[in-house]
Amino acid sequence: MSRSTETTLRVRYAETDQMGVVYYSNYLVWMEIGRTDFCLHSGFRYRDMEAEDGVMIAVAEARCRYRRPARYDDRILIRTSLTSLKRRILTFSYDIRNADTGEQLATGATVHVAVGADGAQRSIPSRQFDLLSTRAEAPRE
Amino acid sequence: MSRSTETTLRVRYAETDQMGVVYYSNYLVWMEIGRTDFCLHSGFRYRDMEAEDGVMIAVAEARCRYRRPARYDDRILIRTSLTSLKRRILTFSYDIRNADTGEQLATGATVHVAVGADGAQRSIPSRQFDLLSTRAEAPRE
Amino acid sequence: MSRSTETTLRVRYAETDQMGVVYYSNYLVWMEIGRTDFCLHSGFRYRDMEAEDGVMIAVAEARCRYRRPARYDDRILIRTSLTSLKRRILTFSYDIRNADTGEQLATGATVHVAVGADGAQRSIPSRQFDLLSTRAEAPRE
Amino acid sequence: MSRSTETTLRVRYAETDQMGVVYYSNYLVWMEIGRTDFCLHSGFRYRDMEAEDGVMIAVAEARCRYRRPARYDDRILIRTSLTSLKRRILTFSYDIRNADTGEQLATGATVHVAVGADGAQRSIPSRQFDLLSTRAEAPRE
Repeated sequence: MSRSTETTLRVRYAETDQMGVVYYSNYLVWMEIGRTDFCLHSGFRYRDMEAEDGVMIAVAEARCRYRRPARYDDRILIRTSLTSLKRRILTFSYDIRNADTGEQLATGATVHVAVGADGAQRSIPSRQFDLLSTRAEAPRE
Repeated sequence: MSRSTETTLRVRYAETDQMGVVYYSNYLVWMEIGRTDFCLHSGFRYRDMEAEDGVMIAVAEARCRYRRPARYDDRILIRTSLTSLKRRILTFSYDIRNADTGEQLATGATVHVAVGADGAQRSIPSRQFDLLSTRAEAPRE
Repeated sequence: MSRSTETTLRVRYAETDQMGVVYYSNYLVWMEIGRTDFCLHSGFRYRDMEAEDGVMIAVAEARCRYRRPARYDDRILIRTSLTSLKRRILTFSYDIRNADTGEQLATGATVHVAVGADGAQRSIPSRQFDLLSTRAEAPRE
Repeated sequence: MSRSTETTLRVRYAETDQMGVVYYSNYLVWMEIGRTDFCLHSGFRYRDMEAEDGVMIAVAEARCRYRRPARYDDRILIRTSLTSLKRRILTFSYDIRNADTGEQLATGATVHVAVGADGAQRSIPSRQFDLLSTRAEAPRE
């Protein structure tokens, strides 16, 4: 069974720029949509973790390599993997493709730290940690 | 003395779309920048009212007429007026121009209600209400 | 047969603001997604009209009434209607709801003019005009 | 003489998210504002290079490390440096701080390739290349 999650979306007009392609910061928005789906497919809603456990997943680092442009109304496939999982730090990786042609558009990764409402580091709550660990690429530590 | 506030900004590449002009929702972002400056010029920072008084100015209505397109790197002038002020409801009006040519690009208005953190209607705190009323177009009610 | 088009989407984290609700300009982005779907359900892709016929649908006016806030991860239903159709001017209306509770969140409308790449007014191409007219609320003029 | 360019801006309400801080993709928008200013201070307007020379600077890679959150209405200082310049490839680096406290919020870099309107690789036009090379950190190649 694949441990990655697949999300599809359609490029919005608002996401294009005057070069006629998707503006580069929007890929980071798409990665976030991939993360939301990854949590959902792991068995919990990210928003519940924020609301009920008071734990948020802040971004510590993001990177993206842009290989081919995406265009308005293209159907996009985001494949999201959890490539590293520790109690306080997680890394997600992304493979972003044109969903119709399969062509790779971008790859990227984001590193996150769990924090409380006060911004201080926290551990991911056990329930969500266990759910995530069943889908993580690497063995949990 | 003019009671309106003037704000200038430069069009960001991110704000353009594939038509080569500023995407239409960004004018509402510019209006919000105008409101922030209007509060500042009235003698208070909007963020302090949110943080210290727990009163937020939610948007109840927005409208915009687009007359001429704005383009990347254009210098934009936003003239913001407070056209109606009541204890719980305010209306701002906006005149958006190319700052270099004076050409009118858009006009608009937003209606707001003061709410608490729980979303329930509140009155604007007295201090800020009095400051705003000195710059309101209409006599306060 | 209903002539309106239904679109569903999920609220993105990026669309929220520090008030904990969807930032108001994003509703205009959602309206645009509704329009894209409306064209598709009418039998053509808006992007083809831009690319092949060189005709773009510029926004002349937008308005939105915000009734209840939308929140991160809410499922949103946008019902898009074509309430007026002339050779060079169209008006779309929108009813935006929480897709799970049916609660109305916002209503709005946008007025558009057909323009060429040079920004000059044009007529909507006959093929797309005929397709749209079968779904317009009012008889075509 | 410092070869980097300094840009200041104020955080927009639209740029915050429900965590109460600036949403992470907006830092990439700020980097782009830094690049626009870097070109301007080097002696040319980026938009003229696009419009007159038909050469665009596409993004091939972006990365950002987020150290401390930025908040609504904070004044932000972006220091942009050109850390590598070749005929077809450039790398910019960014140091993003709170302009009032000097506190470092983020650092990042973007790699770009010059392309024509058809998306094919091009060389940066000589005039702009020479202007940029006077401000590049490394000797031009």
